[in-house]
Amino acid sequence: MGSKSDWETMKNTCDILDELSVPYEKRVVSAHRTPDLMFEYADQAEERGIKVIVAGAGGAAHLPGMVASKTLLPVIGVPIQSKALNGMDSLLSIVQMPGGVPVATVSIGKAGAVNAGLLAAQILGINDEDIMKRIGDRRLKMRNESIESSGDLL
Amino acid sequence: MGSKSDWETMKNTCDILDELSVPYEKRVVSAHRTPDLMFEYADQAEERGIKVIVAGAGGAAHLPGMVASKTLLPVIGVPIQSKALNGMDSLLSIVQMPGGVPVATVSIGKAGAVNAGLLAAQILGINDEDIMKRIGDRRLKMRNESIESSGDLL
Amino acid sequence: MGSKSDWETMKNTCDILDELSVPYEKRVVSAHRTPDLMFEYADQAEERGIKVIVAGAGGAAHLPGMVASKTLLPVIGVPIQSKALNGMDSLLSIVQMPGGVPVATVSIGKAGAVNAGLLAAQILGINDEDIMKRIGDRRLKMRNESIESSGDLL
Amino acid sequence: MGSKSDWETMKNTCDILDELSVPYEKRVVSAHRTPDLMFEYADQAEERGIKVIVAGAGGAAHLPGMVASKTLLPVIGVPIQSKALNGMDSLLSIVQMPGGVPVATVSIGKAGAVNAGLLAAQILGINDEDIMKRIGDRRLKMRNESIESSGDLL
Amino acid sequence: MGSKSDWETMKNTCDILDELSVPYEKRVVSAHRTPDLMFEYADQAEERGIKVIVAGAGGAAHLPGMVASKTLLPVIGVPIQSKALNGMDSLLSIVQMPGGVPVATVSIGKAGAVNAGLLAAQILGINDEDIMKRIGDRRLKMRNESIESSGDLL
Amino acid sequence: MGSKSDWETMKNTCDILDELSVPYEKRVVSAHRTPDLMFEYADQAEERGIKVIVAGAGGAAHLPGMVASKTLLPVIGVPIQSKALNGMDSLLSIVQMPGGVPVATVSIGKAGAVNAGLLAAQILGINDEDIMKRIGDRRLKMRNESIESSGDLL
Amino acid sequence: MGSKSDWETMKNTCDILDELSVPYEKRVVSAHRTPDLMFEYADQAEERGIKVIVAGAGGAAHLPGMVASKTLLPVIGVPIQSKALNGMDSLLSIVQMPGGVPVATVSIGKAGAVNAGLLAAQILGINDEDIMKRIGDRRLKMRNESIESSGDLL
Amino acid sequence: MGSKSDWETMKNTCDILDELSVPYEKRVVSAHRTPDLMFEYADQAEERGIKVIVAGAGGAAHLPGMVASKTLLPVIGVPIQSKALNGMDSLLSIVQMPGGVPVATVSIGKAGAVNAGLLAAQILGINDEDIMKRIGDRRLKMRNESIESSGDLL
Repeated sequence: MGSKSDWETMKNTCDILDELSVPYEKRVVSAHRTPDLMFEYADQAEERGIKVIVAGAGGAAHLPGMVASKTLLPVIGVPIQSKALNGMDSLLSIVQMPGGVPVATVSIGKAGAVNAGLLAAQILGINDEDIMKRIGDRRLKMRNESIESSGDLL
Repeated sequence: MGSKSDWETMKNTCDILDELSVPYEKRVVSAHRTPDLMFEYADQAEERGIKVIVAGAGGAAHLPGMVASKTLLPVIGVPIQSKALNGMDSLLSIVQMPGGVPVATVSIGKAGAVNAGLLAAQILGINDEDIMKRIGDRRLKMRNESIESSGDLL
Repeated sequence: MGSKSDWETMKNTCDILDELSVPYEKRVVSAHRTPDLMFEYADQAEERGIKVIVAGAGGAAHLPGMVASKTLLPVIGVPIQSKALNGMDSLLSIVQMPGGVPVATVSIGKAGAVNAGLLAAQILGINDEDIMKRIGDRRLKMRNESIESSGDLL
Repeated sequence: MGSKSDWETMKNTCDILDELSVPYEKRVVSAHRTPDLMFEYADQAEERGIKVIVAGAGGAAHLPGMVASKTLLPVIGVPIQSKALNGMDSLLSIVQMPGGVPVATVSIGKAGAVNAGLLAAQILGINDEDIMKRIGDRRLKMRNESIESSGDLL
Repeated sequence: MGSKSDWETMKNTCDILDELSVPYEKRVVSAHRTPDLMFEYADQAEERGIKVIVAGAGGAAHLPGMVASKTLLPVIGVPIQSKALNGMDSLLSIVQMPGGVPVATVSIGKAGAVNAGLLAAQILGINDEDIMKRIGDRRLKMRNESIESSGDLL
Repeated sequence: MGSKSDWETMKNTCDILDELSVPYEKRVVSAHRTPDLMFEYADQAEERGIKVIVAGAGGAAHLPGMVASKTLLPVIGVPIQSKALNGMDSLLSIVQMPGGVPVATVSIGKAGAVNAGLLAAQILGINDEDIMKRIGDRRLKMRNESIESSGDLL
Repeated sequence: MGSKSDWETMKNTCDILDELSVPYEKRVVSAHRTPDLMFEYADQAEERGIKVIVAGAGGAAHLPGMVASKTLLPVIGVPIQSKALNGMDSLLSIVQMPGGVPVATVSIGKAGAVNAGLLAAQILGINDEDIMKRIGDRRLKMRNESIESSGDLL
Repeated sequence: MGSKSDWETMKNTCDILDELSVPYEKRVVSAHRTPDLMFEYADQAEERGIKVIVAGAGGAAHLPGMVASKTLLPVIGVPIQSKALNGMDSLLSIVQMPGGVPVATVSIGKAGAVNAGLLAAQILGINDEDIMKRIGDRRLKMRNESIESSGDLL
């Protein structure tokens, strides 16, 4: 994530990965305050055995796209809800990448952070039946909770 | 893709996959005109051996999110540039998914379609060194062309 | 509605239908968490004697459009006010349907939920003089309250 | 429709109604240039035997909402694509009605005009099996064309 | 104003007119709930000796434009800040009038209500030196307060 | 107007004033290129006998608001349709004036220029029966043309 | 700044300049309430030895652009976060200047005010090694704090 | 600039610098395709004697902000008009920088490129009377052309 203040949003990604028993590391790496660290991190990620990178940032959110420019690993971008423009600036800064360097963008804020964790797991799940099984179980649980919540209205 | 008229955009995804020698199949599957076919397609994709799904749609673009709700495979959404609102409607309809069902959204229009192909390849490349190698070569070529283009200005 | 959290908005639809003595059923049916249930619900609605469907959803709001793709009954869509984008995403995801599958979209949030109930009643009222009479009475009451409120300012 | 220049869009509504053999009348009735005629038209519509009103307008599009304030019949609003703001002004002027007077809003421009015709037919179809049958046939045709178009890509 | 709930905003117009000793009347007249009253009001305003009409409304704000269609008097429109879209819907519904029927639109919310009162006074002031004098005095006072406030920062 | 390139839009204001026999003068006065001239113009307008000022400008459109800050005369602002943002920047720069200095804003582009001429005439018409009569005649003509255009559709 | 109410935002500019030991003066100078003072201030700034002007304003924010039109000094514009439109109006009013008169625009609100101070210092730093050194130290400190904050998450 | 395709816009910056006899170098340096080159360029700019950097980019425009994160020199960002979103994405990606790393943002497209050249010259002009003189002459010429263009309308 780009700033410690993003943690309130990004912890939802960690919660999902914990829930699905997907190992991960978490870091504050800022595109604008620690650009060299960002490049170093992105550069070494693949050889360090990382498979997917989730990057959350707000406002003129350059972290996901810049990380993506320095690695061949899939990069998932989470637009943090910004103060003045409610994350529309974050969303456009992350999703509107030029042809050649994709960022897999998810929704603004908490829901996006949840989905970043799930998407990372789904990507890993392509070659890991156990993870895919746990994602499937989570879907089933979510489905059942939705059906039960309908009963609550009566 | 949701409609044959999306082909002009979505062929860019196919071109990238061809360029990277990533096998794929292409289909018109409409969320609104062939909903059952969409569900059947999404339902069977994993068992048919598909690893990643790219879905392009415009306007109230429901295809990527609905496919994502019916499969555990990663789904990449391409917002087609729409007539009145230039794809802002497509983008928001695709990216703003609720927590629980992610869609990996790329940029609006042609650049997004290119990036959908690259992102799909990167996801597969995690477990396929040959694909990753070809993506790396493409990046290098892109880098060199950028540097050369700078010389053209002089 | 797509989620139990939409109830705070959607209960306004129920209040109007109660007020107009229009019978209805209410359900949580989620496009993304219970897609099969959604299809089943939409598929069977007409034969179960339902005449109009009101669907409320927020963010990448696919419920109204997907229900509309699976039934010939008129579907009314209520854009729930979303957290980051205030319902602009909900509105565009619901209203910008492609030619062929309409959704009758009403305003964002509570006012829209009220209007969804009224619109459903008006549609039924075409062939039910009693309902139309009650809608007319409500309009008259609303008119009188407006006129009286003007007096309050003096 | 509010102006003769809206005909290019609104003829799509007429085409659909012709196709579905739903009788209709078409008129230019302007909220701003012929307000009294608009009121008279809306006032008398129900007693003249009209069942549903489709109103298309652009910019500060007041026609649908004002007609709706003068009749208990369901009113469908079509946001015409405007010059400067691409119909975003038309859409918000039509859809954001206050609680009490709904307008069933469809998508901006041509697709919306098509859908207005279909939605009107669906509303009538609730009590007219023949119309519902023809809408169903149209859906089936649309479905088949979509499936065939997929074959064209191969 | 269109609703009693607009009073919190529109009282600022009255305060300015009081301050400038410009006589006025205030009314709740709703485009959607009391359309006939609105037409009657607009129709009779000129012969009743009214010179300028200020109309405040929110959301799909039709009041200013519809009043303007029924009178030759200058109509000033105040976009009330709406709940979901912060008055952007109100602004576009009021300002984007078609050629032929102008509405003099001011800013969203309280500042707009203040300015509506001032603009009405300026219009009357063209032929009333006393009013113009009081507007000039108010400007001077405003100027002095601004200059003084600069001193407060030191 | 702020630039000669605005003439294509602003000539519509002149055409209306010609049509209504309202005398006027036209000038290019730029807020950013000739700020002193703008101040001088605004400062002297009232004593030169001018009654209403129409100011058209695009982009960061400061002309209407700055003229308004230097005169007590009513100022009408026309948002010119800008290249990148279609006049949304012009509109917000003109209409969102702080409390204390109003600008009577009309719609973006040509329709707005037409309406600026009409609004200026209506303001003058408050004390000039001949002008008001001609505006009334124009309205009537517009009404009749609208009604006739309806017949053309048959 | 345009109003004393902008001080809450603009004090962040002063804090940065204090921190970097860059001398400055602060003033409330309103484009709309004290236009002559604004012109006088801008006109005399250069000869008074001022090197860079920072201007913060909200809504129809004309202060930065108008100051820029009256001086050859670089002008930095800070869009104050406005009430209804969250500063989008301020941003567009400041940044969308026509070719010929630039305003160096920074981000909306507090972050922008901080950056205005930094940008002013950077501009002065081109010819002042001491300032540049202090900016460099601040960057280093910011970098270290970012790295440390990453440790806090563990 | 980020891509050779930006040249059509960015050549306007060069034209201004030529006109003002300000020496410069021009390069294609892409944030996403040549990130290392970008960092190297930004890192070495100050010691190579560069005083101001102008960076133009479109879409998810990261070039200006990333260059700014790697140098203490003032960085001017030009939002290139993008295809789908007309440069609104470019603008927000460039201007909404977090506190700590400013980018001096100018208007979208050609006018912005012109202004970037002028702003760079103004920054240099603080310590270079000759440049300031030429900028002043250009202003005067612009002023005279504006006044003359007013005469053309008569």
